[in-house]
Amino acid sequence: MKGFTLWFTGLSGAGKSTLATLVAAELRERGSNVEIMDGDAVRTNLSKGLGFSKEDRDTNIRRIGYVCNLLSRNGVVAMSAAISPYMAVRDEVRRMTESRFVEVYVECPIDVLTERDVKGLYKKAIAGEIKNFTGISDPYEGPEDPEIRVHSDTQSVAESAQHIIDRLERMNLIPAPAGASYCADDEEAEIVAQLQKKSYL
Amino acid sequence: MKGFTLWFTGLSGAGKSTLATLVAAELRERGSNVEIMDGDAVRTNLSKGLGFSKEDRDTNIRRIGYVCNLLSRNGVVAMSAAISPYMAVRDEVRRMTESRFVEVYVECPIDVLTERDVKGLYKKAIAGEIKNFTGISDPYEGPEDPEIRVHSDTQSVAESAQHIIDRLERMNLIPAPAGASYCADDEEAEIVAQLQKKSYL
Repeated sequence: MKGFTLWFTGLSGAGKSTLATLVAAELRERGSNVEIMDGDAVRTNLSKGLGFSKEDRDTNIRRIGYVCNLLSRNGVVAMSAAISPYMAVRDEVRRMTESRFVEVYVECPIDVLTERDVKGLYKKAIAGEIKNFTGISDPYEGPEDPEIRVHSDTQSVAESAQHIIDRLERMNLIPAPAGASYCADDEEAEIVAQLQKKSYL
Repeated sequence: MKGFTLWFTGLSGAGKSTLATLVAAELRERGSNVEIMDGDAVRTNLSKGLGFSKEDRDTNIRRIGYVCNLLSRNGVVAMSAAISPYMAVRDEVRRMTESRFVEVYVECPIDVLTERDVKGLYKKAIAGEIKNFTGISDPYEGPEDPEIRVHSDTQSVAESAQHIIDRLERMNLIPAPAGASYCADDEEAEIVAQLQKKSYL
């Protein structure tokens, strides 16, 4: 089985972990081995003691990248679902990754996230109760050319997950599901229409 | 392919990394995916900033154990070649490992290591120039019932590596090499002799 790194990046609450979980379930269905390096799990198991300064965040990301590389070069689909706010260190991890590195930008405007505020963190960050909070008191540098881009303010989680799966299929990184046709339904309809117009069908 | 953790433990200079490299080469020949978590590599990539206090050493070992578990539950043979001086944390890693955990005790008397002193570290440690040096100014707790035991003062590196390979074969963790007979040559000879004695052959 082909291993690769699927690197989610985006603000807190944008839906990185939820999306990773959904995509992982689908890939496991198709026979892949998958591991998710979730921000919280990593801070417990790999990065206890590190804080949220730029240096500590970068060290944390480098460690996740190191482990993702170990896994993906052995045929595992390694997913990172940490915020990873800095472009330079994401690109450093991309360069050191021996298998394919696929960046997924989970976009969501900050005012939508502040409005939702599922964990109440944005409110606290705006009130100054949390320091170094990405997007409020700490920078977030979105990727300019991510391999995959999803929009959690306008798409449902299922739609975003399906978009990621479709893109991975087209990149030949994952097998198509059993019984799948060559192209999407709407494309198929268009091709059929054109062939009928030209009297081939 | 079956994944498991092969956990080397022993004093500095006993030959853990050399042995791991040799065993890894043989396992790769037989089709396994192998990763070695070497003490130095880990301190660079996972544990920068940690020192050699008991607490920091334990954290380092837990991290290696966490990564070995991620790898081995995905079919990789994950080897650790760090000193790992404390029994309690080795046993903790053993308990959290989901696949088989195989401990290899690389034994060598400290006076032999001090005599050899390949890297000149023992001399410095005895002179007090290195603090927290395992076996000199810091404890080393050998395992009581390791799955595999090798003696680097009396065996050659090749002999120790072969012993580890043999044991792993008998534990059904690795396939026998192509063309191998069911049992070792001397055993085979003995069985043949017994069968001849009983007139079966």
